[in-house]
Formats: sequence, C-alpha cells, structure tokens
Amino acid sequence: MKITHAEVFVGGPGKNYVTLKIMTDEGLYGVGDATLNNRELLPAAYLKEYLIPCLIGKDPQKIEDIWQYFYKGAYFRRGPVAMAAFGAIDQALWDIKGKAANMPVYQLLGGKSRDASKIYAHASGVDIEHLKDSIRGYLEQGYEAVRVQCGIPDMPGSGYAINQNKDVKNYITSFNGNVPKEEVWDSKKYLRYLPKMLEELRVTFGEDIDILHDVHHRLTPREAAQFGKEMEQFNLYWLEDPTPAEDQDALKLLRQHSTVPIAIGEVFNSIYDCHQLIQNQMIDFIRVSCTYAGGITPTRKLVDFAAHFNVKTGFHGAPSHSPISMAAQGHINAWAPNFGIQEYLVLGTSECDQLFPSDHFVKNGHFHISDAPGLGVDFDEKEVVKYSFNKGYHPVTRLTDGTVWNY
Amino acid sequence: MKITHAEVFVGGPGKNYVTLKIMTDEGLYGVGDATLNNRELLPAAYLKEYLIPCLIGKDPQKIEDIWQYFYKGAYFRRGPVAMAAFGAIDQALWDIKGKAANMPVYQLLGGKSRDASKIYAHASGVDIEHLKDSIRGYLEQGYEAVRVQCGIPDMPGSGYAINQNKDVKNYITSFNGNVPKEEVWDSKKYLRYLPKMLEELRVTFGEDIDILHDVHHRLTPREAAQFGKEMEQFNLYWLEDPTPAEDQDALKLLRQHSTVPIAIGEVFNSIYDCHQLIQNQMIDFIRVSCTYAGGITPTRKLVDFAAHFNVKTGFHGAPSHSPISMAAQGHINAWAPNFGIQEYLVLGTSECDQLFPSDHFVKNGHFHISDAPGLGVDFDEKEVVKYSFNKGYHPVTRLTDGTVWNY
Amino acid sequence: MKITHAEVFVGGPGKNYVTLKIMTDEGLYGVGDATLNNRELLPAAYLKEYLIPCLIGKDPQKIEDIWQYFYKGAYFRRGPVAMAAFGAIDQALWDIKGKAANMPVYQLLGGKSRDASKIYAHASGVDIEHLKDSIRGYLEQGYEAVRVQCGIPDMPGSGYAINQNKDVKNYITSFNGNVPKEEVWDSKKYLRYLPKMLEELRVTFGEDIDILHDVHHRLTPREAAQFGKEMEQFNLYWLEDPTPAEDQDALKLLRQHSTVPIAIGEVFNSIYDCHQLIQNQMIDFIRVSCTYAGGITPTRKLVDFAAHFNVKTGFHGAPSHSPISMAAQGHINAWAPNFGIQEYLVLGTSECDQLFPSDHFVKNGHFHISDAPGLGVDFDEKEVVKYSFNKGYHPVTRLTDGTVWNY
Amino acid sequence: MKITHAEVFVGGPGKNYVTLKIMTDEGLYGVGDATLNNRELLPAAYLKEYLIPCLIGKDPQKIEDIWQYFYKGAYFRRGPVAMAAFGAIDQALWDIKGKAANMPVYQLLGGKSRDASKIYAHASGVDIEHLKDSIRGYLEQGYEAVRVQCGIPDMPGSGYAINQNKDVKNYITSFNGNVPKEEVWDSKKYLRYLPKMLEELRVTFGEDIDILHDVHHRLTPREAAQFGKEMEQFNLYWLEDPTPAEDQDALKLLRQHSTVPIAIGEVFNSIYDCHQLIQNQMIDFIRVSCTYAGGITPTRKLVDFAAHFNVKTGFHGAPSHSPISMAAQGHINAWAPNFGIQEYLVLGTSECDQLFPSDHFVKNGHFHISDAPGLGVDFDEKEVVKYSFNKGYHPVTRLTDGTVWNY
Repeated sequence: MKITHAEVFVGGPGKNYVTLKIMTDEGLYGVGDATLNNRELLPAAYLKEYLIPCLIGKDPQKIEDIWQYFYKGAYFRRGPVAMAAFGAIDQALWDIKGKAANMPVYQLLGGKSRDASKIYAHASGVDIEHLKDSIRGYLEQGYEAVRVQCGIPDMPGSGYAINQNKDVKNYITSFNGNVPKEEVWDSKKYLRYLPKMLEELRVTFGEDIDILHDVHHRLTPREAAQFGKEMEQFNLYWLEDPTPAEDQDALKLLRQHSTVPIAIGEVFNSIYDCHQLIQNQMIDFIRVSCTYAGGITPTRKLVDFAAHFNVKTGFHGAPSHSPISMAAQGHINAWAPNFGIQEYLVLGTSECDQLFPSDHFVKNGHFHISDAPGLGVDFDEKEVVKYSFNKGYHPVTRLTDGTVWNY
Repeated sequence: MKITHAEVFVGGPGKNYVTLKIMTDEGLYGVGDATLNNRELLPAAYLKEYLIPCLIGKDPQKIEDIWQYFYKGAYFRRGPVAMAAFGAIDQALWDIKGKAANMPVYQLLGGKSRDASKIYAHASGVDIEHLKDSIRGYLEQGYEAVRVQCGIPDMPGSGYAINQNKDVKNYITSFNGNVPKEEVWDSKKYLRYLPKMLEELRVTFGEDIDILHDVHHRLTPREAAQFGKEMEQFNLYWLEDPTPAEDQDALKLLRQHSTVPIAIGEVFNSIYDCHQLIQNQMIDFIRVSCTYAGGITPTRKLVDFAAHFNVKTGFHGAPSHSPISMAAQGHINAWAPNFGIQEYLVLGTSECDQLFPSDHFVKNGHFHISDAPGLGVDFDEKEVVKYSFNKGYHPVTRLTDGTVWNY
Repeated sequence: MKITHAEVFVGGPGKNYVTLKIMTDEGLYGVGDATLNNRELLPAAYLKEYLIPCLIGKDPQKIEDIWQYFYKGAYFRRGPVAMAAFGAIDQALWDIKGKAANMPVYQLLGGKSRDASKIYAHASGVDIEHLKDSIRGYLEQGYEAVRVQCGIPDMPGSGYAINQNKDVKNYITSFNGNVPKEEVWDSKKYLRYLPKMLEELRVTFGEDIDILHDVHHRLTPREAAQFGKEMEQFNLYWLEDPTPAEDQDALKLLRQHSTVPIAIGEVFNSIYDCHQLIQNQMIDFIRVSCTYAGGITPTRKLVDFAAHFNVKTGFHGAPSHSPISMAAQGHINAWAPNFGIQEYLVLGTSECDQLFPSDHFVKNGHFHISDAPGLGVDFDEKEVVKYSFNKGYHPVTRLTDGTVWNY
Repeated sequence: MKITHAEVFVGGPGKNYVTLKIMTDEGLYGVGDATLNNRELLPAAYLKEYLIPCLIGKDPQKIEDIWQYFYKGAYFRRGPVAMAAFGAIDQALWDIKGKAANMPVYQLLGGKSRDASKIYAHASGVDIEHLKDSIRGYLEQGYEAVRVQCGIPDMPGSGYAINQNKDVKNYITSFNGNVPKEEVWDSKKYLRYLPKMLEELRVTFGEDIDILHDVHHRLTPREAAQFGKEMEQFNLYWLEDPTPAEDQDALKLLRQHSTVPIAIGEVFNSIYDCHQLIQNQMIDFIRVSCTYAGGITPTRKLVDFAAHFNVKTGFHGAPSHSPISMAAQGHINAWAPNFGIQEYLVLGTSECDQLFPSDHFVKNGHFHISDAPGLGVDFDEKEVVKYSFNKGYHPVTRLTDGTVWNY
C-alpha cells in the first residue's frame, strides 16, 4: 500500500477544525485531527508545507517508522504545533490500518477493557445558583461526573470558562476576535470563595456526584498547596492544573500537603513534558490530548508509562477536539487498563454530525465507541466548504495591578 | 468470536517444547509457547489445570482484558511459571488477532521499523583455539555478532555453556538427566583468564566483529566492577548478566566504574523485576523473553518503557524457545524503535521445522520475519506425538570449597 | 543421615493442603507445607517432578546447602510456585533437625523470647451490626486483636472476605468452582464508608481492642494516602495491603501523609520483593508466610533483616496454611526478638486435628507452641486419603465499568 | 510610543531568513530574526496570523509585558515555532529601545564586560587530511577555536555537516529539496574512528588550538559515557550534543565517567528544556539561540541562571541565524559575565551584507560588536525582494538496518 496524496481542511461549525485526509493507492483513506485551539493555521501550514510532501509514496502501514521519521527528522522537536501535525498523521494512519484489518482501532490496541468509558461534563455559572442549575442539567442527562467552575464575587467577568448568560445552555467559551480579550484575576478572592462554593455543592448534591475543578494554572506552588489541603474535605474527583504545567517541580509542595487527586496535561506535547510528574507520582491523572501529544502511537506509550506508576488517564476533550480526535481517544479509552475518565465537551450539533458522521454515542454519562473499522468516524468534504476560518485567541489574564498572569 | 477449547502439548526434537493451541468458534486458532527451560511441566500444568478452563467462552480479541484477568486474578503474582503460562496465552491471542486482521502481528504493533533484525550466535570452545574455530564458523555464515564463551584453564569441565567436544558443530548445552550435574567455579581464575581470551580474539578477528560475553550471574558486585572496567578496552557489544539478576542494586558499582554495555533480563518475569535497572539506566539492553515475561502484551509495554530510558532490546533466544516464541519476538523486533539485537540459538533442524512450519528465515546474521497473518508459524499436532518428555536440569554450580554458587 | 524418599499429598478437610513428608535412613522424618492457595497442584508438581528426585541421598542436616542448591539451581528464581515447594522442603528438614536434636525447632533458632505469641482473628459482617457480633464472638474467646472487614452499602456481594450469612460462625471464604467468581469493586464507596465503620467500632468497643484492617491491594497510591491519613484518628493496629504489593514505590505517598502502621507481605516470595519497603521503612510489619517465602531458612533471615530496620513480624495465617506451616511460623514467632503478631485463621476442626495431630494450642488470643521435638506437628497419611482435590480460584474483581481490578 | 505596524519577510541569499520589522508612530523601527531552519514558514505564519495583530497599538517599550503577554497568552506554550516568533518580536523591541536610548543594546544589558567575544569556526573534511586543510584555513584567519567534523571510513556520505568537496571553501550544509535526504549512521564506526582523528589533530596542531566536536545527538547515554571518557585525553574545548537533548537525564552516565566539557542547547526553546541540566551541573556551556529561545528577554534570564550554576554561554550560530539574531547574541555576549564562546558560521557574503547592513565585524577569531544604537544591524527591504523561498529539510538519519535515528 502507498500513500498517494493527502489534504488538509480548515473549518467547521463554530470551530476551526483542522482535518487531514490521507489517501492510498488501494482506495483506503484515513482521517486525522490537527486542531490546535486558536492556533489552527499553524499545524495546517506544517502539514501542507512540510509533512504531506514527505508522506507521498510511503507505506501507510509503517506507522511507527513514519512517526519516528517526522519526530526525529524535525530536528527542532516538541512543541504543540509540530505534535498536533504529527498527531493528525498518526491518527489517519491508524484509521487506515483499522480499515485494512477490518477492525475498530481498539482491537489493534489489544481489545476492549470496558463496555463504555465514563465522561465528565462542564458545568459553570456566574454564581453558585447558576452553577447548580448547570449541574442539575447534566445530572438529568445521566452524567455522574461534572467539572464545576463559578464566577467569583467582585471579580468582574472573571473566572475561567464561565457561562455569563443564564439563558444559554451547553455553554462553550467563545474565543473569536482579532486580539485576545483581557481578563482580571485575583487569587486571593478565588482562594477565599472556592471552599464556600464547594461546601454548598456538597450540601446540595451530596457525596455521590463526582466533582472536578480546574484551577487553570493560576496558583503559585504554595497557594496550590494551601488550596489542595483545604480541598481534601470536599472529596474532589480531581483538582486540575493547579500550577503552570511547564514546571514539573511545582507540584512538590502541594503533594506534600494534600492528598487531593491531581490532573494535569492538556498542554503537554511529549512524554518529556511530564515524565517526572509521572515517575515521581506527582499526578493521578494524565490529561494529554491524542492530537497535541502526537497521535495514538506516542499516547499509547505514555498511557502504558503512566500505568506503571499508577497514574490513570483523563484525556483532554474540549470543544476544539474534532470528533476525529475524540474517536482516537475513545479507542484508547476503550482499551487502556488504566483508563480513568474522559473530558467530554464536543459540539454535538447536527452540523457537526454531518461534517463528521459516526456511530459513536454518549449515553448516561458514558462514551460508547463504534465497532466500525478504523476510527469509526468519517469526514464529509462537501460539508466543510460551508465553513470559513474565524480567528480566535485565548484570553490574556492580568492581575489587578496589570501584571500578566496565566490564563 | 469465542474461544471454544485449548490444548497443551509437551515435546519436541531435543527440547520439551510446551505449545498451547487456542481454538475459536470461527475456525481461527492461535499458537503460543510456554516452554520454561527445565521446568516445562509446570507452565503446562498451570495452563491445563487452572487457565484453560477460564479461557473457554471468552472473546479472544480482548487480549488486554484477558491478560489483566489472569495477572491480577492470580493473587500470587509474578514468577516464571505463571508468566510463561500467561505468555503462551497472550502469544496465541495475538496470533488469532493477526489472522482475524489478515495481517502479520508486526503490523498490529505499528508496522516494520526495519527490514530484518540483527541476531547473534553462540560460539564456545574448550580453549581459545577451539573457540576461534567456532567463531569462524559463524562469521562464514554471515554473522556479524557472536557471543564467546571459553573453558578456563585448571577449571575442569568448567565454564558456562562450553562445547566440550571439538567434533561437534552447532553445540547446544544438554541438560538431560534425573538430577542436576554439578560444576565447579572459581571467579579468580575466570577473572584472570578472560582478558587474555578477549585480547587474543581482538588480535585475531579485529575490531569489526561484535563480541558479546555472558558472565551468567557469577560475579559479586565488586568483582563485576573490576571485570567491567578491564573489559572496556575490548570494546564488547555487551557484557551479560555480570551479577545475580534479582538484585537490582548490584549494578551500581559496575556502572560507576565502567562504561561497558550491560545486558540483563532472561530471568525477569515482570517489569517490577527490572524497572529500577531501567529507570536508573543501569543496563543498556533488556533481555527478557516474550514467553517468561508474560507474552507480547507486557513485553511491548516493557520495550516502550525501556525506550524512554534509552535502553535497547536484546531478547533471550536460547534453544529452549520454540519457534513460536521466537516468532513472537521477531514481530516485536521488526517493530520496536529501540530494537538492539536478538539472541538466536534455535534448533533449526528439519524435525523442528516440520513441527513448527514457518516462512521466517535467517540470512547473513539477520532474522527475516514472515508476512503471513498472525505470528506466521504453525504447529503440527501429528508431528508432536513423535516426541516424549525428557527431564533435564540446569547444573548446580559450586565453588572449589563446595559452597553452592550461581549457575 | 541420608534422605531415602519423600512424598507429596494433596488434600484435607475444606482445603487442598499440600503436604510433603521426607524420610531418612535413620527413621526420622519431617513434614512440610507447600500449600499455595488455589494453585495447590503447581507446588505439588514442582516437588514431585523436579525437587524430590534431587533430595534422595542428600544429608538432611545440610539445610542451608540444600536451600541454596534449590534456589540458585532453579535458574528461573523467585515466584510463589517454586518458593512454596522450597518452603515445604525446608520446613521438613528443620522438623528432622529438631527431632535429631530432640528439641523443638524454636530452640535451634535461639530459644524462646516469649511464652506465647499474640494472634489476631478475622471478624466480618455484611453490615456493621453483623460485624460487631462477629467481633464480640472473638472478644469473648479472649482475643485482643481482630481484623475487621465489612460489606459496603450499595456494593452488592462486595467487600473482601465478608461473611454474607449471619447464621455462619467462623466464616472462611469459599473459593471452590471451575472458574473464578467475578466481584465488583468501587473504591469511592469504600473510602466513604470505612471511616464511618471504624468510628462506630471505636465507639462500641473503646480504645483497648486492637483493630486491624485489610485493604487487599485495592487502592491507588494516592487513595491509600488519603485513606491512611483519615485512619490515623482510629488508632489502627495496622492497615494491611493498601496498594498492590509488587510496586515497592507505591507506599511513598501514604507514608508521607500518614503515620498509620502498615503491614504488607503475604504475596512476597523473596526478600527481593520487599527489601526496599523494609530498608526505606515504608512498612511496620512484614507479613510473609513461611511457606511461600521459601521456608524457615530464608524467613529467619528476613526477620533479622526486618529487625535491623525496626520492622516487626505479622505473618500470614489464612486457612490455606496447614497446621505444619502454622507450626513453623509458631517456632519463629516464639524466638523472634521483633515478633509483632500472628494472623490466625486455621480450620481448627476435629478433622483437621486428626490429619495434623499436635499439642500447639490457642488460649486467650495467644498461640502456645508445643515443646515436642521438631515442628511439633505430625501428618496422618491414613487420614489424608479421605480427601480429594477440589479446584478453586480467588475471585476476579472488576470495577463498575468492567475494568479488571485487584482482588 | 505605539507600534503602528509590523511586517514579516521571508528570503535571503542561500537561506530563507525570516525577518520581522516593527514600526512605531515615532518613526523608530526595530528588526528581529524568526528564522527556524527548514521550518521557516511556520514562525512567519505565526507572526503574520496571530502575533502582529496583537502588537498594533502596544507600547514597544513594555518589552517584558509584551513577552509575558505572548508567552503566557499562547496557552499552548513552548516549542520552537512559537518561541522563534516571540524571539523576533523581542529582538525588534530591544532594537527600538536601544535606538530610543541612542545606545547599543549591550549598554541596556549592563554594559560591556569584554572588548570582543571569542568565536569558533566550523572545519570539516571527508577525511583527516581534508579536515586538516580546513582547520589550517581558519587558523590562518586568526581563529583560536575550531569545531572539527570528519567523514568516517566505510560510512558513505556520512558524518554530520561534512564538506564532501575538497574544492569548496567555507562549506555550508545544503538542505534544499522537496523531501529530506536520508543518511546512514553507524555509532560503532564513529566511536572507533574519532579517537584516531583527534589524536592526529593534536599531533598536527598541538595543544594550543581549542578543539570542539559536535556529536549531534547520536549516541546513547552509555556510548556517550564511553566516548566522553576516551575524549578526556584530547583536552577538548567542548563535546557538543552527545545525546538527544530532550532527555535531561541522559547526561548522568557521561558526567559520572568523564570530565570532558559538555555543551548542549541549540534545540532548547525554554528554560524548562534545560533547567535540570543546569541545576545539576550536567553541562558546562548552554548553547541556546536568542531566536528559538524566545528573544533577548528570556535569554538574558537564562544566562544569569546558568551563571549561578557556573555554566558559561556558547550560543548557537549556524548559517540559519540571520545577522540580526547574531547581533542580538553579540550584545548578550558583550555583556554576559559568564560568556564562554560564540559559534560563528554566518554567510558573510556581500549579498548578505547588503540585505543586513551593519558595522559588526570579525577579526582574529573574535566578534566585535558595533556601537550603533539598538542592535546595530539594519534590514534592506528593497534587497529582500530579490530572494524567494526555497524549501529544505534536515536529513533523516537511519541506522544500517533502516531504523530511524537522530539526525
């Protein structure tokens, strides 16, 4: 089998999905997701300008060789742009491999370890009441696990990923704009308010509900230690990204003072970004994405590495993940002996389903993987022409005195 | 697909191969090797008495789940007997998976990373001249790498794995007998003689030939450090098993004093037997066997774990490995990005080929993997009835004063 | 003295005891226990097929030499099957040695350090009230220490080693069946319920009673840390097997967050399985069994090693231990300067006493060792023919989503 | 002052220089270099699509704020593409700042610590004689330090950065092509040949000349340790990139066995890529580039961090660095108290000088920084239109059996 050509498409309903389609001389094709949120044009350019020319003529079955060829051949290794581009190629090659084997990808990974994979939803509110409504909505849908984010009093427009409009359901952060929005952050107010919020949630919803919370990298190591210690009483499913993720030492203090479960990883692009966190058992869940982590090939290795150190998976699943990347993660989730949970916040609109047809489905807070060969998700080229690129940025966060802080 | 029955066969030409055959309701079957040298009856009994009853009715495609079911379900984990039994099941399931996918197993692992895999042969002699003849024989066959073992003067019948008969070619240690043979060992004589031997080999054969040497666990950590330091000048491909392998700390002194490449692992049955050696980069080659390490599933994970720490593979390949286990390792070797070398000392007789038909072949010191679906090796049940079980033991080694020592 | 023959017997009342009897040319004989729970046929086969032939003609007084001969001579070392077989031989040789000296074995170890050895019983209940009844029963018998296990609400048939029938006294887990039973486990429910249970037990029984609890390997390192931290207030005698035992690093987090006493070891078969736990003082009690740890010879060494690091003994004593192994441990317990406690859950039925006659007895929660020569326990070959082998398996545990978990 | 617009230019004589020009409302402008070798289009796209729109209207004097704004605001941090783009902006802002102060940038950094900065040249040869000629050429120009790379016998077309043509002077590796060239590598031959080469160079050139050698990431940690140990006798100025740079643990073994000076860093894009190497004193020279490391702002911090641990600078200076980036590094070199040496292999052609006019000059192996305000280098937009983009790739390296290896 030979790769004959490959094409990159940018666009989608509400998100600039970057979709790669690899075609072979035997008629089989594979699809991969290279969407890098708010930097979508860069992996697209990487694929078009540098990687696709190298794919032509290669045997698509040599997935490991092709991965090493691009990773080791890049000279300047790592980084989200390159890894998202490699990830799309790798996903598409596993899609082809599965189709060639007439098997869903999870079979190639070693078969299913569970029938369906637990997912968690994103609840948020401008205040606690609004947040509670949001949580109730998910519980009614059968979710057992919910990430909770809440506006902080006296921190206008503040708080990460907060639905500011009580009339909107299924809120998704909008990043559109020609420059980043700027937000204000005050760790002191946050640290003071959060325990109250969590106490009220436990009073209202009891102990059964799995509560997750995302700090979004905004605390110092010491603040994180203080916060983690206080969070113990609320029995969180996990505390996410308490400190900036590029500093693998930053968790020491938190880990020393608290047994709250820690989840980090959506910004990791390589096992080298997190191997110390894992080897030293500083985290409990590894949250990489199969796209920015470079595809199924390195993600599988990372999952096995994590398993050896008793770290479970909790993959990233923001709306920026196209249904292709979510499918790739779904196959890993179905297999991984150390699966933990999957973040799940896809658009799930009919437009999205038309662009990416698949039989995967969510029911009662669990993701059910399709048994179709390959990744089990297709891409409709005729649909994608309806969408054009819309620039967007993550906000820039500043402290009250203007200091740039971590978004 | 369901497993309908499974059978264990013990016997073979010159070796008591333990072969497992798993049958399914769709007509596909898989074969696995559970041969544990000189303890063959135990994994055979484990399979027959405890494991096969659990396999019936299971979906053979759930390889990971079945592996975890047996490993975690055993309660008393680890150990060579259990892991060889699990290994045979796992190999057979990957054989079935490959056949179901109509693909050789290396394709399921990620495809080939090389055309053929370098192997090394076993040369030995009662003295250096005899050893040189043995080496020449392999070089003429195209081998680039040879393990060299030599009788030690004044240590009668001594030395590990030494062909005592100059008229015998392709020597294989005979272990047959109702009790172990006893051998005498003297580390002082060994330490004094080996440098002379290696010097003479380098003079005779030059620098091109890859020389490997196996200490067979017989030195103390300090002796190993002294020996390793002295070996540096001979530019060995590797020094194998310098100290007893169950002590993962024993390499510290050697590693501190020498940069000679170290290979250990044929007696490891679990990643927990070697994770420190790997994490602390105390070894350069991990020498597990796909059988006693529990099959393709855990071996693949161990290979990836080793890769992260820059440790290459150098799998065990004694004659006790049936062609099934050698095929399983061959598929891993074809894929593994961190492949190093493969030990290769199979019987390769026409009787052996009739019992285990395959298209795998060796040429110019390289192993070429078959492209047939699954493991690419079959098992002829009509042939196996020709052979009966012959008991054998590894020798017991004693120091000159009678103290039991490491074989 | 020479060993003339040796025989293995499998069977017993309610358990498949594996009993070794070694005979000598001087008429003295010794007995040893090779019972490996739910894998009994394997050490029996190891003894019959591989080890007994090597024993014939050997001097039974060379216990150390024979132990090293088998351990170092096995080549593939470690693992529960081999070590249980070696253990039975070693126990029988110490039995012979004691008889030859006309002394109980404890005298050969260095004499008694205490009159009787404290033991603990197993209490369990489907709910707390049931558990309290069970505890009361043991307190009435004079026990000062009780292991407590309780059914978890909403986890049907759940919880390790729980007596499900309130009418049954002296409950022993039944493992019989042709395949493993499957059980469901939910750490979340367990972690939430246990503090309530222990609080109620302390309220009911006060502070005098020694309470032990067995987690049975089911928590992750972080969960174990959280649990251990919470357990501090209940002043446990020990917390057993919080995490899977093959990972010697898994205790770090727990040890950092809690001073609860930790006991691990029933699945260890070698000092190499636990030397880091001991050297790094990660545990407080070493729970090996004299059988699976390879006999009195290596267990004595391990006890001395543990003493150096202030670790006490707390040997395994499940019903799968025959009275022979319990006697061997009893002699070590009588001598060991670092004796802690002994688990004690033997069948103690009249059938069992007829099969294994002895003068050892239990009174007021203490084990009193017999002063008879040797191990002080005999084996009645005429009795054993009443019993046939009954296959059994430890259950396989799965999480609620089907993932295989630790039993 | 406000930034009014900014523009990116791709092209140059022989190299695809990526040049950023930032204009202000006060007429001052600054230039920066975003050239990422063989991936030039990606930082160019990053600048055009995502960063320049955010610059407009900002105060160019807030260099730190702008750097943090882009770094923390990117959400997906690190990686060479982003950092090269940030680096160009940062260089341009320091250029503006210098011009506004009417001072060369080194004055803003703290002033000159030396009159001129020592540089080293690249000598190479297909064989030792050719290499010697190349070295002689540089010695005649007054260089005191030369990096030496030599073809390896029987490794056709092999060896990193080797001038294959004896008639060519000032050789620069050509990367042009639509796909990567593939090269073959054999560490064994390299390790055998290099000591001979270095011995001959020392015999020929004596001890005065500073000899540097670049392994280009191609050895395993153990091979690097062996090689480093053997290199001690040749008194190298440094040994560069002995192992793949993303593994900060890989130097341990080398450092333990050898005192040869180690230089690493051209592929680092963040202090997090190397902080352990520095904190643990695993390297002696930090070789980052002011471009891919994100500009003058983070590079100055990294230099100070390195100084604390006694690590000197040895910045990257391949021909892919435009004279702008070389000027930025020149200013840091003039100031840094822990300056070591500067790699210097710029095109230095008249075409290049016309495109980037400056007064910086090289004399007697030293770089003399201009006293002109700002970076002291300009960019001629009329010149750049002469050049178009020419795609190129770093080669992909394979071992003799086809395994992908490190270029």
